[in-house]
Amino acid sequence: MTFSAKGLIERKRDGGRLEDDEIRLLIAEYSADRVPDYQMSALLMAILKVGMDAGELDAWTDAMLESGDRLDFSHVAAPKVDKHSTGGVGDKVSIPLAPMVAACGVAVPMMSGRGLGHTGGTLDKLETIPGFRTALDPPEFTRILERTGLVLAGQSETLVPADRRLYALRDATGTVPSIPLIASSIMSKKLAEGLDALVLDVKVGRGAFMKEIGEARRLATTMVAIGEGRGTRVEAVITDMNQPLGRAVGNANEMVESIEVLRGEGPPDLRALVLRLGEDMLLAGGAAGDRDEARDRLEHSIASGDAFAKLVETVEAQGGDPAVLHHPGRFPTAGGEHVVTAARAGYVHAADALGIAVGALRLGAGRERKEDEIDPAVGVVVEVKIGDRVEAGEPLARIAWNERERLGAALAEIEQAFEIGDEPCGPATLIYEEVR
Amino acid sequence: MTFSAKGLIERKRDGGRLEDDEIRLLIAEYSADRVPDYQMSALLMAILKVGMDAGELDAWTDAMLESGDRLDFSHVAAPKVDKHSTGGVGDKVSIPLAPMVAACGVAVPMMSGRGLGHTGGTLDKLETIPGFRTALDPPEFTRILERTGLVLAGQSETLVPADRRLYALRDATGTVPSIPLIASSIMSKKLAEGLDALVLDVKVGRGAFMKEIGEARRLATTMVAIGEGRGTRVEAVITDMNQPLGRAVGNANEMVESIEVLRGEGPPDLRALVLRLGEDMLLAGGAAGDRDEARDRLEHSIASGDAFAKLVETVEAQGGDPAVLHHPGRFPTAGGEHVVTAARAGYVHAADALGIAVGALRLGAGRERKEDEIDPAVGVVVEVKIGDRVEAGEPLARIAWNERERLGAALAEIEQAFEIGDEPCGPATLIYEEVR
Repeated sequence: MTFSAKGLIERKRDGGRLEDDEIRLLIAEYSADRVPDYQMSALLMAILKVGMDAGELDAWTDAMLESGDRLDFSHVAAPKVDKHSTGGVGDKVSIPLAPMVAACGVAVPMMSGRGLGHTGGTLDKLETIPGFRTALDPPEFTRILERTGLVLAGQSETLVPADRRLYALRDATGTVPSIPLIASSIMSKKLAEGLDALVLDVKVGRGAFMKEIGEARRLATTMVAIGEGRGTRVEAVITDMNQPLGRAVGNANEMVESIEVLRGEGPPDLRALVLRLGEDMLLAGGAAGDRDEARDRLEHSIASGDAFAKLVETVEAQGGDPAVLHHPGRFPTAGGEHVVTAARAGYVHAADALGIAVGALRLGAGRERKEDEIDPAVGVVVEVKIGDRVEAGEPLARIAWNERERLGAALAEIEQAFEIGDEPCGPATLIYEEVR
Repeated sequence: MTFSAKGLIERKRDGGRLEDDEIRLLIAEYSADRVPDYQMSALLMAILKVGMDAGELDAWTDAMLESGDRLDFSHVAAPKVDKHSTGGVGDKVSIPLAPMVAACGVAVPMMSGRGLGHTGGTLDKLETIPGFRTALDPPEFTRILERTGLVLAGQSETLVPADRRLYALRDATGTVPSIPLIASSIMSKKLAEGLDALVLDVKVGRGAFMKEIGEARRLATTMVAIGEGRGTRVEAVITDMNQPLGRAVGNANEMVESIEVLRGEGPPDLRALVLRLGEDMLLAGGAAGDRDEARDRLEHSIASGDAFAKLVETVEAQGGDPAVLHHPGRFPTAGGEHVVTAARAGYVHAADALGIAVGALRLGAGRERKEDEIDPAVGVVVEVKIGDRVEAGEPLARIAWNERERLGAALAEIEQAFEIGDEPCGPATLIYEEVR
């Protein structure tokens, strides 16, 4: 076969399909710098507009997997289960969830990312723990997983390098929002972790990548199918991201809220989602026979202190000082607080996750560009949920700020995020549906 | 305005439109190497899939024009009219047409291209004249135009350099077949020539870029509108390219056939099209009051020998030895001839222009890649037209070849190009419609 990237672009452009061999060769040649970025970006745009069928998507995912190393935890006796979220606002779920599940006997080799744009990153939140290291090489990663059953680390550079390059190219060329490309990017990274099962939290709403339930469903279905084809059990839950999850949006404040959950406290919506995803992970890993048993075990992991102890153990194994976990008041705090209050009485119709997230970003809690530094102490605590009754002058959000010149830009976003109406409205749905 | 190529890609991807300023800045930044090829190719694919409206197309064409020099022939008193063909097989129209029109008092500053792929190039054909130079700098180009009223040259490097770069990128990224991009590419080059009027020959059929009349009509309409908006009179004729034009397909053999037309001979279809386009050029240039007068003048230019003399004059001005024009037997000839004959009696249903062109390409008459050398002597002479009655054993085509190992590949294409059926069929339509 004479390989022609141009021929593949033309065929996809015209609505045709690419063969398995062609996709494998394309990704290999691109990885070897023998297909230039300008051909790949044209193909990515054609894929975005035309789509890929299930067979193409399987081949694309496999080709990405073949571009790098794969982890092998087959010698770890416990079932290996990870969770992945498509990204939200106030989404600190992984931090309490992973130790709870690990405390129930399921190994959790969790690889997380950093925040970029309006979405926060689990790594940034974890790194507010003094000394905590998230860059682990594969031997250390494996050693900690064997010892504690829990690792909270960043993505290894050697896993799916093709995705790393393709993602940067997609980011620069407007070719991110393609369901097959998103699905294969996520799934290739997760499949490289050598998991037995994966639970996906697909976010939908104003603060999520997917704005419509139909899109979220298509993404979830696509990822479940990719896992299926490779013998990895994958289940997805589609959950709400119109308002922030829990109350805290930032970094240190999200760690504090995560610890509250591990102590049996914390906001009800966050606790409910952590428990739901924990049940799915225990069931998928075979560590519970049914949903009731799974919930009992998770609640016991909190009541007994086992889950908290598991987090402490892993934090120490990864070089962190667990003192902040015992004394959350020692997490970095901001110099100033500004309270956003309700201008009128009524019912909370909106607490827009995107607006609140952009506000937090303006304060310095996130990154506009990859190379930006974050301020761990700043952020927003949202005091109301959709459906709540408020009186005029009651607090809607508390803004923790360090630089006054950033506060103005943040306020402009956050004040507009809230809508108070006369009509009563019910609380927002948290969990829409599951896809398996 | 903060310029973001990524923002433009995303907007076009989602079906939006680009503003005039944005397009101007995009082309300027790309020309200055501040927008990378990988962003431009993604945008080109989005444009191919989504389209551009008339306003965007005007801005795009203007931005291309602004990227380079523009010729100024305002001191040449005669009307300046050029003809452009979208490319066909056996399409040597320019070679007899330009001297005929110039002999009638219209200045023809003709800039042509080289052949690539299956379509031949006027420059390659002209360069079979010993010594003939097609690379003229602007002062020489102008001097010859002033003296003879006719120049037959290649595109100047300083005219529309953005198109040169964009075309190479489109060629590598499967983004050539977009009507707005084709139209703006052609029209920006022609508008840079400072013409009073332009006649377009838009080819449609198996051997043309446009396979369907609807596409050809859209391209013609788009180009006419671009000219209109800039005060240049543009008329298009949509003509057939299912079978080769005339009989000769190659280089030297097409020169011989062109000289036949200038001597009042040559194949009827070629003569008919040359006269039709010549009438349009004279009318557009104001050198004839009506079509009858235009035809009389063109026929007189042949009968009087003025058109032939005009070609001789320009060939000498461009350094060529006109002896071959007087003695066409001195053009290079091939070493071998192979005659393709009819396997059965019947009517010619097809003489596929694409198959015959690819056959000629295999012989060495064309280029697979830009850097390939062509063999001026090889080619095909097609002995039949669609609708002709043939008997078994009668010649369909004569193949002039130099390398036996290339003959086999050529034959495979050429033999398959002919279809003989039992049903009588009429001759093919040559001129479908005009767009103005």
